Amino acid sequence: MSKNNKKKIDTKKLVIVISKGTLDMAYPPLILATSAAAMGMEVDLYFTFWGLDLLNKNKINSIKMAPVGNPGLPMPNIVGMIPGMTNMATSMMKGRIKKYWPTIPKMMKSAKDAGVRIHACSPTMGLMKVNEKELIPEVNDIIGASTYLDLAIDADVSLFI
Amino acid sequence: MSKNNKKKIDTKKLVIVISKGTLDMAYPPLILATSAAAMGMEVDLYFTFWGLDLLNKNKINSIKMAPVGNPGLPMPNIVGMIPGMTNMATSMMKGRIKKYWPTIPKMMKSAKDAGVRIHACSPTMGLMKVNEKELIPEVNDIIGASTYLDLAIDADVSLFI
Amino acid sequence: MSKNNKKKIDTKKLVIVISKGTLDMAYPPLILATSAAAMGMEVDLYFTFWGLDLLNKNKINSIKMAPVGNPGLPMPNIVGMIPGMTNMATSMMKGRIKKYWPTIPKMMKSAKDAGVRIHACSPTMGLMKVNEKELIPEVNDIIGASTYLDLAIDADVSLFI
Repeated sequence: MSKNNKKKIDTKKLVIVISKGTLDMAYPPLILATSAAAMGMEVDLYFTFWGLDLLNKNKINSIKMAPVGNPGLPMPNIVGMIPGMTNMATSMMKGRIKKYWPTIPKMMKSAKDAGVRIHACSPTMGLMKVNEKELIPEVNDIIGASTYLDLAIDADVSLFI
Repeated sequence: MSKNNKKKIDTKKLVIVISKGTLDMAYPPLILATSAAAMGMEVDLYFTFWGLDLLNKNKINSIKMAPVGNPGLPMPNIVGMIPGMTNMATSMMKGRIKKYWPTIPKMMKSAKDAGVRIHACSPTMGLMKVNEKELIPEVNDIIGASTYLDLAIDADVSLFI
Repeated sequence: MSKNNKKKIDTKKLVIVISKGTLDMAYPPLILATSAAAMGMEVDLYFTFWGLDLLNKNKINSIKMAPVGNPGLPMPNIVGMIPGMTNMATSMMKGRIKKYWPTIPKMMKSAKDAGVRIHACSPTMGLMKVNEKELIPEVNDIIGASTYLDLAIDADVSLFI
């Protein structure tokens, strides 16, 4: 066996399903993906349901934080109800996040540049009202559940976020 | 080794913990389960916490969508507060979903017919106030965390949703 | 090979990322961790994002339940908005939980006593505004994403909660 084949066989694989489209749940998979790529792992991200908002040109720049229903946020639910509070909670969280990480569009680009493969889930694209032309250029392809399952079967680490 | 044994050994296994009882998080595991079964994979679903609502005869026909705390939904939080809005958000989402997939009870039946095994989590049944007689007929058995862990150890793909 | 080495090699490993800081999502990983440890599995818990609230001395005793945005809770969203309702939903849930399990601080201590390793995620500690001195004594160490990924690669069961 050539050294090259040996290396290929030893490469560890990370596959993550990304089903959430909120600011706080977008970061964990993107941080893990870029860390894994930096370690030399192969990484596949499968965006489905609300996760497709992160691949949508019209939405990726305005991913929001829910100001209610999240007891971890320092904001009473009654305040979260006031119009504009989703934007305020989002600004507050973005302000905290930017001390540590780039914006979501920049994280996505870094991931792609590091070799992370970005897949859009075909069966949920209609449901999430996004079409092929609205996808960000980082998307490698549009795949279905069985293609995702084949990737996950081969993975050393497989997560659903 | 007989061909039959060989096949058995090569069969890939998917095990999913289902901990959520909302409309949008019920579909991903049911879609993955039916896709995996169609590919010839063995599939075990372990319903726990809010996920038990999906196995509860009194609840499976009225699984709801949260109208607040979900910035992906096109509805301001203040509107989501008005009585009846949970039902409205649920109808809206159901309307979008039914273009692509059957209802949750039908998806559950299809999964079962395709050989997917459906397990209710015994330690959380009391907590979720469901008893054995209230479980839908698709349930194979009621198991504990250690039985689930044994299934997960053998799985090729193991997810928590 | 000595019996001891054999045993070591056969030991199954569970690794869980804990990213949520709500009452209902704190229990599933702690129940799985203690069950797995009781079965002789090696267990590593990696607390990140909101999950760090569970390792924060100032927060672990007041982990809350969101009264809105959770259609599984028997409380209309409009009621969940009234000040004090987060506390009421939390009390209601705690009352139901305590029939079955100890409190979160006690579950954490039991897990630790059973050999479960508890890791705080270094890159998100600043974001979640917790410093080393504020961590509960059960924490083994503060690690980064690549150390977590090494643990997950070796795991037999790897979950993201």
